[in-house]
Amino acid sequence: MMRNIKLTIAYDGTDFRGWQMQPGLPTIQGAITDVLSRITRGKIALHGSGRTDAGVHALGQVANFQTGARLTPGEFQHALNGILPGTIRIYAAEEVPQDFHARHSALAKTYRYRVFSGQVLPPFLSRYVFHYPGTLDESAMYDAARHFVGEHDFTTFSGNPEMSEPPGDEGQSPSPIRTVHSVEILREGDEVLVQLRGRSFLRYMVRKMTGTLLEVGRGKLRPGAIPQMLAARDRSKVNFTAPPHGLYLATVEYGGSAG
Amino acid sequence: MMRNIKLTIAYDGTDFRGWQMQPGLPTIQGAITDVLSRITRGKIALHGSGRTDAGVHALGQVANFQTGARLTPGEFQHALNGILPGTIRIYAAEEVPQDFHARHSALAKTYRYRVFSGQVLPPFLSRYVFHYPGTLDESAMYDAARHFVGEHDFTTFSGNPEMSEPPGDEGQSPSPIRTVHSVEILREGDEVLVQLRGRSFLRYMVRKMTGTLLEVGRGKLRPGAIPQMLAARDRSKVNFTAPPHGLYLATVEYGGSAG
Repeated sequence: MMRNIKLTIAYDGTDFRGWQMQPGLPTIQGAITDVLSRITRGKIALHGSGRTDAGVHALGQVANFQTGARLTPGEFQHALNGILPGTIRIYAAEEVPQDFHARHSALAKTYRYRVFSGQVLPPFLSRYVFHYPGTLDESAMYDAARHFVGEHDFTTFSGNPEMSEPPGDEGQSPSPIRTVHSVEILREGDEVLVQLRGRSFLRYMVRKMTGTLLEVGRGKLRPGAIPQMLAARDRSKVNFTAPPHGLYLATVEYGGSAG
Repeated sequence: MMRNIKLTIAYDGTDFRGWQMQPGLPTIQGAITDVLSRITRGKIALHGSGRTDAGVHALGQVANFQTGARLTPGEFQHALNGILPGTIRIYAAEEVPQDFHARHSALAKTYRYRVFSGQVLPPFLSRYVFHYPGTLDESAMYDAARHFVGEHDFTTFSGNPEMSEPPGDEGQSPSPIRTVHSVEILREGDEVLVQLRGRSFLRYMVRKMTGTLLEVGRGKLRPGAIPQMLAARDRSKVNFTAPPHGLYLATVEYGGSAG
């Protein structure tokens, strides 16, 4: 009998070319699928909640796969962590109902972006935060970020069409309409965190929103410019896309039993 | 006129073969010396407070060099940070009296060792803490660690003579007598920190003491075994040397004006 196994996964994206499997390149999906196929001696289709780009990290990516293998979820977790590199860790494995699908069942996702605004970036953070030295006006950043909340056409904050995933490939309509549930701007010492929660996001959307918020924080842009940028539906309005190594897929939310 | 410049340095030791310059190998001293020589167009002798081994990190290593170059200390700091890889950062540069010497003037050093005792090591910590999953009895570790405090012959906790630095090369006598000022065992969530402060330490001494304390924490050794181990003056009594990637040279202390 086939069972459906849900994995909760953290990874350091530094050494990977993103989530999505690509022949001959190191990817997260490729590394986990390879180990699962060897453990179960079968072909495994691993469904992630969504892609993350090259260099982007995850604290709580979610994926699921069907298997006839008799291992318990805990045995899957231990076997995976025993074989995978230390930069990919399975935090949890559990059996879920057959209709659970990491992408289709997802209700909301939270992304976190880490910025270090101090002059000298500690060497231990160089792979994990974006170094943007100088003062940041968090209050202005928050005033700007509030304009992102709600349902909007996010064309301005999306990637070039030729760089994006093919329409519908993510189970999303090709529509650029997205709903952002909440935005938080938090300071912890020399670090500023931008946290965004929404149903789903367009490719590069979080990094383009964050880059724009940083320009507001630096005084290069007024918070009131955001509504005009959204209304323009014009990618050329965004001057700065924050780099991938500061970005984390923090959590993916599901309903009740599969939560 | 020659000036004496003191640098306070943090580094991620992962990609380096330790502090000490070695021809053709990436080392911290080699990387900084190379950049300083290019900036000043002269030959620079960079004196560290002491060596750190391959893979060991530093939060506050101290070094000094003499130069006739007219750069201010702040300009040295910015030039170095602009050219060095992000895994080596100059936290401070200051002009100090001619008689300041990073090694000879050091009054005390503090080393910190990070252990992660949870089952699954977060991928972002894999380069920075030692993963030792399972319960640790910190109270027993502290009872054991107290026996290290004071002046002792630390032969048991030293490296093989052929692996050590040549006697006197560190400005130390070849004597295995050392004084440990204090030992702390701290828990922060799933992490246990072992912190040792002393005048100076033998090579591998901190890692051998920490490995032994971890065996006490795991119940493989009684705290009361430490005095016997010290008295034996026998390297074979130590079963476990903690690996380098959990170790940090935290601070080096100096007297008044050069502090």
